Amino acid sequence: MNFTIQKALIAVTDGYTTLDVQVVNGIITAIGEDLDVIGTAINGEHKLLLPGFFNAHTHSSEKWQRGVIPPLPLELWLAHLYDFAPLDTEQVYLSALGTAVETLLSGGTSVVDHLVLIPGKEMETITTVVRAYQEIGIRAFIAPLIQDESLTAGMPTGELTQNHEPYFRSTAETLAIIEEAVIKFHRPDEGINILVAPTGIQLCTDALFTGCIDLSNRYNLCRHSHLLETKAQEKLAAEKYGCSAVEHLNRIGFLSDRTSLAHCVWLTDADIQILAETQSTVVHNPLSNLRLGSGIAPILKYRQAGVNVTFGCDGASSNDSQDLLEAIKIGSILHNVTDFDYQLWITPRQAVEMAALGGAKGLNIDEKLGSLTVGKKADLVLYDLTSLSLLPRTDPIGLLVLGRPVNVVNSAWVNGKQIIADGKVTTINVDELRQELFNRSQWETRGKSPTVAQIESHYRQVMGL
Amino acid sequence: MNFTIQKALIAVTDGYTTLDVQVVNGIITAIGEDLDVIGTAINGEHKLLLPGFFNAHTHSSEKWQRGVIPPLPLELWLAHLYDFAPLDTEQVYLSALGTAVETLLSGGTSVVDHLVLIPGKEMETITTVVRAYQEIGIRAFIAPLIQDESLTAGMPTGELTQNHEPYFRSTAETLAIIEEAVIKFHRPDEGINILVAPTGIQLCTDALFTGCIDLSNRYNLCRHSHLLETKAQEKLAAEKYGCSAVEHLNRIGFLSDRTSLAHCVWLTDADIQILAETQSTVVHNPLSNLRLGSGIAPILKYRQAGVNVTFGCDGASSNDSQDLLEAIKIGSILHNVTDFDYQLWITPRQAVEMAALGGAKGLNIDEKLGSLTVGKKADLVLYDLTSLSLLPRTDPIGLLVLGRPVNVVNSAWVNGKQIIADGKVTTINVDELRQELFNRSQWETRGKSPTVAQIESHYRQVMGL
Repeated sequence: MNFTIQKALIAVTDGYTTLDVQVVNGIITAIGEDLDVIGTAINGEHKLLLPGFFNAHTHSSEKWQRGVIPPLPLELWLAHLYDFAPLDTEQVYLSALGTAVETLLSGGTSVVDHLVLIPGKEMETITTVVRAYQEIGIRAFIAPLIQDESLTAGMPTGELTQNHEPYFRSTAETLAIIEEAVIKFHRPDEGINILVAPTGIQLCTDALFTGCIDLSNRYNLCRHSHLLETKAQEKLAAEKYGCSAVEHLNRIGFLSDRTSLAHCVWLTDADIQILAETQSTVVHNPLSNLRLGSGIAPILKYRQAGVNVTFGCDGASSNDSQDLLEAIKIGSILHNVTDFDYQLWITPRQAVEMAALGGAKGLNIDEKLGSLTVGKKADLVLYDLTSLSLLPRTDPIGLLVLGRPVNVVNSAWVNGKQIIADGKVTTINVDELRQELFNRSQWETRGKSPTVAQIESHYRQVMGL
Repeated sequence: MNFTIQKALIAVTDGYTTLDVQVVNGIITAIGEDLDVIGTAINGEHKLLLPGFFNAHTHSSEKWQRGVIPPLPLELWLAHLYDFAPLDTEQVYLSALGTAVETLLSGGTSVVDHLVLIPGKEMETITTVVRAYQEIGIRAFIAPLIQDESLTAGMPTGELTQNHEPYFRSTAETLAIIEEAVIKFHRPDEGINILVAPTGIQLCTDALFTGCIDLSNRYNLCRHSHLLETKAQEKLAAEKYGCSAVEHLNRIGFLSDRTSLAHCVWLTDADIQILAETQSTVVHNPLSNLRLGSGIAPILKYRQAGVNVTFGCDGASSNDSQDLLEAIKIGSILHNVTDFDYQLWITPRQAVEMAALGGAKGLNIDEKLGSLTVGKKADLVLYDLTSLSLLPRTDPIGLLVLGRPVNVVNSAWVNGKQIIADGKVTTINVDELRQELFNRSQWETRGKSPTVAQIESHYRQVMGL
């Protein structure tokens, strides 16, 4: 558990320096020149050391449908996703491992898994991903995705009357599942966290939100939700509440310094002020926002208003990858086209801080994680700067963020435990994982989705298409 | 030279099938089931076969500055780039190889290198990249970047009077260099092509454009140029011509079915009609357009108007990678936020066609390249569908385009010659290349650029910042 990284390149103001880093019992105990070697000596030469990033919003089990859903906006994409047969727990296990591997190999050491629960096997689903994340050793923030309204309720009605089937599980039962999961699995010191995570205003009643707030307060849990990902959700909020979704969530007390909100594409300036005042965090998922045509989240405005922003890959069927460096790159440069004044554009160093410290802030653990600081937990990543994709040598962070790094993570540690060494995951057998993913799937092209066919004309009408 | 790929997955209407492909003397001679093995047998099992893509716009030598220029708009980014010391020919050689390797490993078999010429060593620069591309074996379209006005002439004057230093080389000398390069190196059948490639209206006189048109007509050369990459260039065109840049280029006869135009961000609907009528090709460089804040090119409008569109990585200091699959992904999904009607969005199969056949069309060789068709040249890529990044198995083209494929190119052939086998480049020693790139560079962070400092206040004033 103890080790000393020697002669790693470390970012300092306006440049880089070569330093050693000591880790004892999972904590960074010293950073300096020519430190005594405590524990294992790690060669940091020609390597860049950074704090681990947060994949701050994903849905691991969507990996089974990645690449297969055609270009559709969220509401129809979701209908298409609903057509796939429910997964079994073994699939959930494998996709959690796969999500963790891709996150780790792209600089992430923490994952927020907004976890889709298998109907009727909710606790087994949670138990399965806890096992997967413990085995591989990534820091896990498991946010069981809950709702208490059925799919069609998530669409604005326009001037039409719509009847929605009641959701198959009651609000009380749902909250009971979450409380049981918290009691069984919420062990922050061991790297497993449970979050309360209603899917969003589009499919949740106030009763579910307030039940989650109550659990969050009683057990000191972080809160996670989707927020205003699409224009349709903006319309729906107006229909449902007569005010913006942000105003409503603020009124019922969901927003806080331990609340992270995925997407936040369709917020007004007043909404942004509310996020700033409540110290809520925005999780930017640029790739799924583009893929689903949701829009460009006003990230530069958030930053100017002092709202904390970090990055997520989102689920692998709306991205369709779990490469965190890709999300960081696109999430940085995408905003250069929304504001002509380049002085506001996100620099590579700012992007790294958003991905590391920003992620930690969003989970209210920035005192313990998110930077190379003595006393903080050792969630660390060493990047191999001799990789072809990081050559010739220029500005390592510039190239890591703006380039397209491939095979660059040499080593990674979570809580001081090494999970990647020499570019390979050490805790699980990735070749076996690959074989299992291969065996349990087949090449296919999906034709038309029956659920999409059912709701498409209503969607086009309401959205004015 | 002769080979037969057995049991490769090949896209057919609405699905995939498993077929063999015979290649004799660099030409696809048969595609079918259970073909006789002619030449070497290649195992295509669990692999997807596609025509090679075109990296249809790049500047190979910018690789030396990738990752190092801070977030700036094109005009200031270019000023920053000018501050770097001119390269030597050995550097040009190495960056051409590096650009080719990254292009090949991301599905490209052709590269259009809008090649920056070392002042005073113009012919040596061209000779050097010809050597590099011949050695590695990629199909090369070398487009020596020429201009006859100096840097500051590229900025709109606004209401200010600006004096620009004359360019150091005369228009006639420049054209003579291109003609000499054509005579020496333009050998389409051997995979080396020379293009006429004035950098763009911002830095070229009409004399240079018409000189290029003349060479193009005499030697049957393709034409390449930047076009309306930034809002500043739109302003400049209005100042310079009193009409749009497209109208002007059409008037002087530069547009044609062998003209490809990089960027095309700031075109009007009337401009788009002109591109359609002249059968010009748009090369979309989504990553540099975002990185430099140039804007989002109206690609869906181009497609609706019948304008041919293909993809480029652009130079590696404005992207800052040469991963063609990244450019194809972002160049596909970026436009889902500009038009809410998802029926217009680019599908993965359309993206593949744009990258392959669209690239061939832009270079007026779509009768010989760009699709898996009997009688066409064998520029082919086999993708390994057992790579972790392409698992679980879903829709292979969907996942190749929308995912983040890593280490997926198993084999590649250009003109029937194998250049990648088992995921490794076979024609050059990539480890030596890596070592050379490492040895000739150092980690650095650039402070303020003196040239940027000189022109920044003028830029801000003219652009209303």
